[in-house]
Amino acid sequence: MAALRSTIDTTPAQGPCCAPAAYPMVDDATAQQLAKVFKALGDPNRIKLFSLITASASGEMCVCDLTEPVGLSQPTVSHHMKLLVEAGLVTREQRGKWAYYQPTTGTLVDAARAFTA
Amino acid sequence: MAALRSTIDTTPAQGPCCAPAAYPMVDDATAQQLAKVFKALGDPNRIKLFSLITASASGEMCVCDLTEPVGLSQPTVSHHMKLLVEAGLVTREQRGKWAYYQPTTGTLVDAARAFTA
Repeated sequence: MAALRSTIDTTPAQGPCCAPAAYPMVDDATAQQLAKVFKALGDPNRIKLFSLITASASGEMCVCDLTEPVGLSQPTVSHHMKLLVEAGLVTREQRGKWAYYQPTTGTLVDAARAFTA
Repeated sequence: MAALRSTIDTTPAQGPCCAPAAYPMVDDATAQQLAKVFKALGDPNRIKLFSLITASASGEMCVCDLTEPVGLSQPTVSHHMKLLVEAGLVTREQRGKWAYYQPTTGTLVDAARAFTA
């Protein structure tokens, strides 16, 4: 399929006049980065985990306190948290036995604001 | 989408002891709905399509003008657009031969604001 895609000519068609069509579209790198943020939240369990962390009164949550509310095993929660960390939505800090997660202020809202609507 | 905030269940879980843990977590239905919005944007091509539509000076775009900038076939673009419509991020209007898409103001920003971070 990759070979097929490479044969597609994506060069903008030149019209009869001088002005090339303007496409106010995000570039590839930006599209990849934004998709990563949104994809990380494209799962109900990760939505729940992120909502717990962002609403935490102490500004962080221990992985040991995340498993019970979502009803998932700790390895599963850790997997979900890894995706949220990689997307830049939370940061992770290991303290002794446990990992603690803090929300990254603004990542999600900034991603949403990348669009003009 | 303001209603989303009111669906956050702040009822403390009753544990075996006296001090219940408070879990301000979004409920199942809200988590499903939010995940649907974010998942729809969890793909670089849909990010590009959505950015084209939200940046359109006329407030809408014909599917016939979406294929060339993203370099995808019309059936593929239509598939991506269906997911954006189902997530409530755009609306679709059939006019004659072509479908036209308009951005739904606020859906994405409201979803991002469902979290307190």
